[in-house]
Amino acid sequence: MSEVASQLRFNAEGLIPAIVQDANTNAVLMLAWMNAEALAKTRELGETVFWSRSRGELWHKGATSGNTQRVIEIRIDCDADVLLIRVEPAGPACHTGEMSCFFRALEELEHGR
Amino acid sequence: MSEVASQLRFNAEGLIPAIVQDANTNAVLMLAWMNAEALAKTRELGETVFWSRSRGELWHKGATSGNTQRVIEIRIDCDADVLLIRVEPAGPACHTGEMSCFFRALEELEHGR
Repeated sequence: MSEVASQLRFNAEGLIPAIVQDANTNAVLMLAWMNAEALAKTRELGETVFWSRSRGELWHKGATSGNTQRVIEIRIDCDADVLLIRVEPAGPACHTGEMSCFFRALEELEHGR
Repeated sequence: MSEVASQLRFNAEGLIPAIVQDANTNAVLMLAWMNAEALAKTRELGETVFWSRSRGELWHKGATSGNTQRVIEIRIDCDADVLLIRVEPAGPACHTGEMSCFFRALEELEHGR
């Protein structure tokens, strides 16, 4: 584990939440999870790599879709248990085709969207 | 549990991550956790209320410090397992006095800040 990773507070599953923000518009695009290896790969590639909790494997965002996220800056919070990744996205962050995964207001759930 | 809460995907501890974003500047301020009750109180008060995992109790942000966060909008992600709360903050989000908890770049950890 790198020096930086050893100072981060990963959870009991060895994961840390990573908020992804568009560095140009400041829009919040998505939240995904990283383990120490995903973070190391992200820094090495300069593109986001997450840990897919559903598939149980590393996930290089955009490897299939082309919608990669170029990393501009990685920030950490005061407790060192959340990452904020500022990126330039090559395309939509969301699998639905929306630029951001946060395309719905909470109220829309009440109306079945 | 409200109709909305029943459609959200809380984790095994009954919690959902809530990203807090400044509605005016789009700065990401912090990430905290909500249970169904914290979310209901947040909607009722119009100010953020979280679940404090360290203290094991509801936490009305700013109740002591005065640094409340007025809720402008609550958004959900495509998987309905992350909230994005857009707020007007009355003061710093961070207990350190910084406006955002993400005041450090990851590299600063390497240099011991």
